[in-house]
Amino acid sequence: MSQARLMDGTALAGRILDETAKRAADLTERTGQAPCLATVLVGEDPASVTYVRMKRNRCRKAGIESRHVELPAATTTEELVGTLRELSADPTVHGILLQHPMGPHIDERAAFEAIAPEKDVDGVTFASFATMSFGLPGFVSCTPGGIMRLLDEYDVDPAGKRAVVVGRSAILGKPAGMLLLARDATVTYCHSRTADLSAAVREADIVVAAVGRPRLIRGQDIKPGAVVVDAGYNAGNVGDVDFDSAVERASLITPVPGGVGPMTIATLLEQTVDAAVTAARQS
Amino acid sequence: MSQARLMDGTALAGRILDETAKRAADLTERTGQAPCLATVLVGEDPASVTYVRMKRNRCRKAGIESRHVELPAATTTEELVGTLRELSADPTVHGILLQHPMGPHIDERAAFEAIAPEKDVDGVTFASFATMSFGLPGFVSCTPGGIMRLLDEYDVDPAGKRAVVVGRSAILGKPAGMLLLARDATVTYCHSRTADLSAAVREADIVVAAVGRPRLIRGQDIKPGAVVVDAGYNAGNVGDVDFDSAVERASLITPVPGGVGPMTIATLLEQTVDAAVTAARQS
Repeated sequence: MSQARLMDGTALAGRILDETAKRAADLTERTGQAPCLATVLVGEDPASVTYVRMKRNRCRKAGIESRHVELPAATTTEELVGTLRELSADPTVHGILLQHPMGPHIDERAAFEAIAPEKDVDGVTFASFATMSFGLPGFVSCTPGGIMRLLDEYDVDPAGKRAVVVGRSAILGKPAGMLLLARDATVTYCHSRTADLSAAVREADIVVAAVGRPRLIRGQDIKPGAVVVDAGYNAGNVGDVDFDSAVERASLITPVPGGVGPMTIATLLEQTVDAAVTAARQS
Repeated sequence: MSQARLMDGTALAGRILDETAKRAADLTERTGQAPCLATVLVGEDPASVTYVRMKRNRCRKAGIESRHVELPAATTTEELVGTLRELSADPTVHGILLQHPMGPHIDERAAFEAIAPEKDVDGVTFASFATMSFGLPGFVSCTPGGIMRLLDEYDVDPAGKRAVVVGRSAILGKPAGMLLLARDATVTYCHSRTADLSAAVREADIVVAAVGRPRLIRGQDIKPGAVVVDAGYNAGNVGDVDFDSAVERASLITPVPGGVGPMTIATLLEQTVDAAVTAARQS
């Protein structure tokens, strides 16, 4: 059997970012105000600091202003909610990214829900989850949204296909399954309590691995010709899929890195410009 | 093979309603105010009129006050939203039921979202869908919530089991799957675009039929010993499951009528009292 074709997230994300930069420049010229993403960071977790810096750098390259709010680790939920409500009410801010995880003393859900749905460009609120689930207009969670774009780019139509999502987190597995269901896939959610993961994965025409366990999905469980999307990211650039064995069975597969990863930021920035365009239209 | 045991929704709902009536009486005695469900009906669709009357009768029997708001068929979305916001703000109203479907000129989603989450005892808002999906405290959609109660009553633990939900409506199939997933089932959503429904159903340890197509699920597709929950209701007291053939293969099965149906109103009333108890605690 021949090797799977790679789904090149770096290339697609690059094109989306180019297009996003053009739209940002157009909007800035037309309105005199650049799209603005507020980034909110609580504490100094090194990985979170790096992620936020990366996102802000990408914003700058795309002509998106970023306004960074750094809060001390000891910030209370109430203080954080207050900050997020202020940003939600500020007409010069178009999108809000609250970097997570936050400290264990923070009620993350209360914080997310303080983000106005029309600025939820990271797709973390109840409202965004519901609009994704019901196929309604709204912002998507960035990684699941990026996965759908990758599938579209490679002409994978989920309709009528069996899709197996491994993982059920609130911003990755669950919304990924809902987006696939909205596109008419027959969707199965697997997770740590699934009795026979291999059997479930073997049924899949589309596998989305989103669980954060290195090389959990082995090639022997991939149905020949299946599309394999690896949204896992583990230490040492290792995904949730055992790439070397899976590439021999799949028809299409995302590499790690360079597959799903770059799509996340591209979706974030694209949605920030979407939010700014909508705000400009309504003002 | 012996016949399946019946899951008696009428009996369980009766016990829940008795318990609910006791709690309602206690609360009324303690606070001087009975729990109150506002029922909102737009237009005069005969089925909707009947459903609302049935729900109000049950309220009365359980010692729950019901306040009925009848709006003409020509009511606009804005007017309906206004009414729902008033009820949401009214401290003497504890739960709100907006009977649907409404007319095609009504934006149903805008109407649902005008219901305060803490009064959404029918479980129709984005917030309720999200809390169900994320396993957080909140109100459940009444039919899916009733299904989970039936499973608990008959000692069916979904954890690690394969559950297949046939149907993906916003207040039945989708939340039923999410509640099963929150209880650690491996959940598959099937629907009209599923390529091989029989094959998917044959994998199921738990089948939830919630699609509104008479006798769509045949006994030959039921895995021997599976638990079959029929949430379908079609003309002539016919469910989505072909009962006569399914009862020969299942270990547990809900009859139609008398299975899932009675659980829906029981859940609605129970949640109304829950809402009133919470409101009393907070006032």
